[in-house]
Amino acid sequence: MRKVAVIGIGQTKIAENWDKSLRELAGDAILAALQDANLSTADAFFLGNMMSSAANNQQNLGPYITDWVGSRGAESIHIESACSSGSAAFRAAVMAVASGEINIAVAAAVEKMTDSPVAETTAFLATAADADWEVDQGVSFVGLNALIMQRYMHEYGWEHPHFANFSINAHKNGINNPQAMFHMPITQENFDRSPIICDPITLLDASPIGDGAAAVIVVPLQDMFLSGQHSHIIVAGSAAASDTIAVHSRKDPLWLSAAELSAKQAYAQAGISPGDINFFEYHDAFTIMASLSLEACGFAERGQAPRMAIENEISLKGRLPVATMGGLKARGHPVGATGLFQIIEVVQQLRRQAGANQVSDAKYGMAQNIGGSGSNIITHILTNAA
Amino acid sequence: MRKVAVIGIGQTKIAENWDKSLRELAGDAILAALQDANLSTADAFFLGNMMSSAANNQQNLGPYITDWVGSRGAESIHIESACSSGSAAFRAAVMAVASGEINIAVAAAVEKMTDSPVAETTAFLATAADADWEVDQGVSFVGLNALIMQRYMHEYGWEHPHFANFSINAHKNGINNPQAMFHMPITQENFDRSPIICDPITLLDASPIGDGAAAVIVVPLQDMFLSGQHSHIIVAGSAAASDTIAVHSRKDPLWLSAAELSAKQAYAQAGISPGDINFFEYHDAFTIMASLSLEACGFAERGQAPRMAIENEISLKGRLPVATMGGLKARGHPVGATGLFQIIEVVQQLRRQAGANQVSDAKYGMAQNIGGSGSNIITHILTNAA
Repeated sequence: MRKVAVIGIGQTKIAENWDKSLRELAGDAILAALQDANLSTADAFFLGNMMSSAANNQQNLGPYITDWVGSRGAESIHIESACSSGSAAFRAAVMAVASGEINIAVAAAVEKMTDSPVAETTAFLATAADADWEVDQGVSFVGLNALIMQRYMHEYGWEHPHFANFSINAHKNGINNPQAMFHMPITQENFDRSPIICDPITLLDASPIGDGAAAVIVVPLQDMFLSGQHSHIIVAGSAAASDTIAVHSRKDPLWLSAAELSAKQAYAQAGISPGDINFFEYHDAFTIMASLSLEACGFAERGQAPRMAIENEISLKGRLPVATMGGLKARGHPVGATGLFQIIEVVQQLRRQAGANQVSDAKYGMAQNIGGSGSNIITHILTNAA
Repeated sequence: MRKVAVIGIGQTKIAENWDKSLRELAGDAILAALQDANLSTADAFFLGNMMSSAANNQQNLGPYITDWVGSRGAESIHIESACSSGSAAFRAAVMAVASGEINIAVAAAVEKMTDSPVAETTAFLATAADADWEVDQGVSFVGLNALIMQRYMHEYGWEHPHFANFSINAHKNGINNPQAMFHMPITQENFDRSPIICDPITLLDASPIGDGAAAVIVVPLQDMFLSGQHSHIIVAGSAAASDTIAVHSRKDPLWLSAAELSAKQAYAQAGISPGDINFFEYHDAFTIMASLSLEACGFAERGQAPRMAIENEISLKGRLPVATMGGLKARGHPVGATGLFQIIEVVQQLRRQAGANQVSDAKYGMAQNIGGSGSNIITHILTNAA
């Protein structure tokens, strides 16, 4: 298996992009990534998306997007794993290039959610849960996360205000990210007075949906294309794992075993341990998912992640900076595209292009993308080390 | 890139399987394939499906199915490319094993279409076409194929009865396939008197939708698992190509350039030419697609494929047997699963397990799966030659 590297990135702003179609959004990100890599086309396109069938009446995204960006004829496949579709597309590109079958791959992901009425979007999001045994009982996606958070607070003795700094930190970091959805700081008081969505989850625990697209260019590490304008960023670890789709089927619903499994595999591939990770783009769709991700990946003891937030270990100058460009909470969560925004933010940090949010001396960055209520989790470790 | 082989196959009957859920169908095929390979689990699952989001309110098929078959924890990703989703899942499995990243991969595909009202299914199928520039004008999927067939007949001087033997041959072959949807022979008279669906396409030009699932096990060619009960079948060629999603955007709507591109790549990988192919599982969703596929792959001159049918060159003892187990027309077309049924049928022939439909002395079998109206086409060549 040959090693691979990222040599181009491109992203749209996450917003209610009503003036752009699904293909225009995807095209904007892909063309920016190709330009960033000094390329005009690619051999294959791996396209992450969760809900275009339901929200945009469009499947078959491969040719739909590939022709639009001027690469008619190229291989192009749509990859779906709910909210982790973006990183699944990235991993598919990594494997295709690693296999020797493909030389230049585009991993791209797009989601256009805000054209639909909110009630419909809630139903579309619920297709990530078990249609037969969860959704048919009437539970929504935020409802599932609320049940997990309720139990977590009960088991470990946390109160709702203890989760505030996950969101405060994300909003603070989002201010300096021009692509982020929100550029407003929030306070503990804002958090505590935020309206309840599904008890105990409030508006400021939850990430916002949005429209957006992101793309990266993946090539073999030993390759002529590496003579470009950027230092190349190496994929040091790539792993995916699954869990039960229904939360109620898990022995311990407070432990993301797919996060642990995929993180351990990624650490082993990179030859490092959690202490070597310099920053972490985690999947803070809800503050409870931020907590569970930190614990399963070995950054906090079981039940103790909120302490990392309270003691500000997650800030840009802390022990483990997280959500360095705003995370899902402030950058926004265009569900099937989010995983590729995370990869791009890792690349920005490792290239030293993160501006005011630059993490100093970063050598290893990790991104973890969670599909469903923890059922399909993909972890990547990237590095700028030779 | 290491060579890979297929060592297990499993399939359900294609029918109106109302007594089975989406996961039960997929599980039946996967467990049969694992048993056929003498395995109990796999490292990764690549799951093809087109319309579960719309028809079954279920995305995130990876964990939904992987847990059900007893492989909780394994990597599992959903792959979509409209009607070629099944072969796209197979190709993803091939690349993952070829890369060295995965040792035992399951490629599986499932579609459950007959729970929905027919008008809805027609709309779901249309998501394979261009939502903005085709479907919004009111055209359905059969409508697009009818426009192509109309033009083909006009350009090359064929009359509708000339297409009959594509369907007669498929129905004849389906009789001996226990998994096929139809086991009834049809005659030229049946074909000529068949009711029009969308002029000139009649009921007997068109393949039927259905519920079904298929799965195969992919491993490295040099591997301990090859000591099993079957001769292993080698993947000699695997290629995918795209075209414009909208038919009206093509310079020549009567030429499947993605079929030509992917077939040429597959021939080159296998080191053979069209004349070396002993049988062809083509994508006869409509008789016009059968014709265009034969021409683009180099088996017939442009505009002359109906002659192959009329002269019966496509029968089991003809120059190029096609649809040897019934094809889409008689075996049935569970859209996102069809590509894996094709792969299984190629394996059955190369293993000499095709019963009364066995093609004698077959060494190379080809399968071609068409997504959209020719927009996303994947071609595989398998062989039993060492």
